[in-house]
Amino acid sequence: MRIAVTDGIDPGAKREIEEMGHHVHEKHYSKDELLNGCLSEFDVVVIRSATKMTADVIEASTGDKDGLSLIIRAGVGIDNIDSESASANSVLICNTPGASTNAVVELTIGHLISSSRHIVTGDSKLRNGIWAKNELRGSELRGKNLGLLGYGRIARGVGRIANAMGMNVHAFDPYVQESTDDCVFHDNVDSLFSTCTHISIHCFLSDETRHIINEKLISKMPVIGEDGIRCGNHIINCARGGIIQEEDLFKALQSGNLTSASLDVFETEPALKNTLLNLDNFQATPHIGASTLEAQRRIGEEIVSIIISHSSGQVPDSCLN
Amino acid sequence: MRIAVTDGIDPGAKREIEEMGHHVHEKHYSKDELLNGCLSEFDVVVIRSATKMTADVIEASTGDKDGLSLIIRAGVGIDNIDSESASANSVLICNTPGASTNAVVELTIGHLISSSRHIVTGDSKLRNGIWAKNELRGSELRGKNLGLLGYGRIARGVGRIANAMGMNVHAFDPYVQESTDDCVFHDNVDSLFSTCTHISIHCFLSDETRHIINEKLISKMPVIGEDGIRCGNHIINCARGGIIQEEDLFKALQSGNLTSASLDVFETEPALKNTLLNLDNFQATPHIGASTLEAQRRIGEEIVSIIISHSSGQVPDSCLN
Repeated sequence: MRIAVTDGIDPGAKREIEEMGHHVHEKHYSKDELLNGCLSEFDVVVIRSATKMTADVIEASTGDKDGLSLIIRAGVGIDNIDSESASANSVLICNTPGASTNAVVELTIGHLISSSRHIVTGDSKLRNGIWAKNELRGSELRGKNLGLLGYGRIARGVGRIANAMGMNVHAFDPYVQESTDDCVFHDNVDSLFSTCTHISIHCFLSDETRHIINEKLISKMPVIGEDGIRCGNHIINCARGGIIQEEDLFKALQSGNLTSASLDVFETEPALKNTLLNLDNFQATPHIGASTLEAQRRIGEEIVSIIISHSSGQVPDSCLN
Repeated sequence: MRIAVTDGIDPGAKREIEEMGHHVHEKHYSKDELLNGCLSEFDVVVIRSATKMTADVIEASTGDKDGLSLIIRAGVGIDNIDSESASANSVLICNTPGASTNAVVELTIGHLISSSRHIVTGDSKLRNGIWAKNELRGSELRGKNLGLLGYGRIARGVGRIANAMGMNVHAFDPYVQESTDDCVFHDNVDSLFSTCTHISIHCFLSDETRHIINEKLISKMPVIGEDGIRCGNHIINCARGGIIQEEDLFKALQSGNLTSASLDVFETEPALKNTLLNLDNFQATPHIGASTLEAQRRIGEEIVSIIISHSSGQVPDSCLN
């Protein structure tokens, strides 16, 4: 098979695929090249989030019978793929759902602690010659309520570690109402926000979730922790940009309705001119939730297994359409 | 009783002590004032780490019969108190041993994740207009060996969370050889460092531990994680400055023997001209291990209980001499 890789791949996985006799072409294409059908020369395209497989791109890639038959999303979220158009053009979509779970789980816990304990600010001030020991009093996570918006694999992983840290874990997910985990389920997002001083987002971006977190919802957060400590309100998003209304987030951080916010994802990426970056009670990473050596290796392993299935005429396990 | 508070106290605790009829005088004294016996007007002094109770200061504070009879260290480490001189001058030393445990535990986990996932660097680059997504590939903690140098209350708390994150916990502590925790004990510090890609320090500063971590010891660290991933070597110190030889740490970070180092404590504090602050693979906080609302409240509660014991003529439970 002819396989285009547009946003990078683990070198070990590339080698393995080539050793199976497939041709791997690694190149990032411009929007114009994609619209001009450059992918129609390939059977398979492996993308991450940077390549946008819009309806127009998919149609241009499937112009002749020999065109694209499989899109592999190295990662989880497929909001950069028009799945209706893919299905209509007989293009399968696969992702690598489990590969990045633990990487995102750990980053989420890292952001939770880092923001409530001012790790980023402490380092930055020290590098600017300021020993801000007395200004940087933080709050602990133990004894606080953590609200998980969405309760899939990543949320469950975060919940398990949060439990071990002594947090009370709460969740709202319209598609999951109960589990054996130590977690309190809520009927609606208002109830989750009214209960939790700490919120972490773990849902997909969809019409249902776009801008679901706005100023009104943030203003419901309790400020005072379940343990009686005035720890303020904190939000983490390592899921997808666009779930939080960023203008409202900015206002809430400025007004003090939010004590801190930590984002790994943004409505517009790369997020270089984002006004949130001017705020001291905001911290950010550049969409590195899945950027670990371990996740890249696991994604590579899943890609290899999808290509083995597809080349032998089977539908891969992780096929989404 | 007349109580001097030289490095601050929780307002609630101060109020409670005053309501018991004691006089609380909150002031930070200079070294000269201390040497001139300003504390001899008080029965009790409450200090943190900033006030140095050297032999000379203690003698100056106990000049007459009415002088100081109790030093309360709001916190744990008493390396800023000359305990021989205190004992010789019949001055009791108490600390608040459990109050800051969880605060330090959480900061340690925060530093562990933040350094292995480049949270500080990611934020700093974004604020400088650089979307460093591709440069900031990190490594996960799950599946790696975490070595705890010292196995007291804080280390055990870190170990429990690290276990929940899927790390293998190792420890060396000459005063603790076994426990029921899920932890592998080592006979010596060389064995701990040879086994662990991640080291976190949780011992006191003493003649035995001063500069125990040097270039030779760091060079024994395995670079490759227990799970086969080349995650590099990482050291965290949220215990006391001086346990790590800082010049050696600098060399190891420059040579690549160490992939990252995170310090909350330094040989000289405030650490403003420390050359480590010039390195990109170094991250620091300004000795904020115990700086949480929760720890300050718990410290305040313990101080109140020590003062109740002392004023009724009993030896407080946390008396160290």
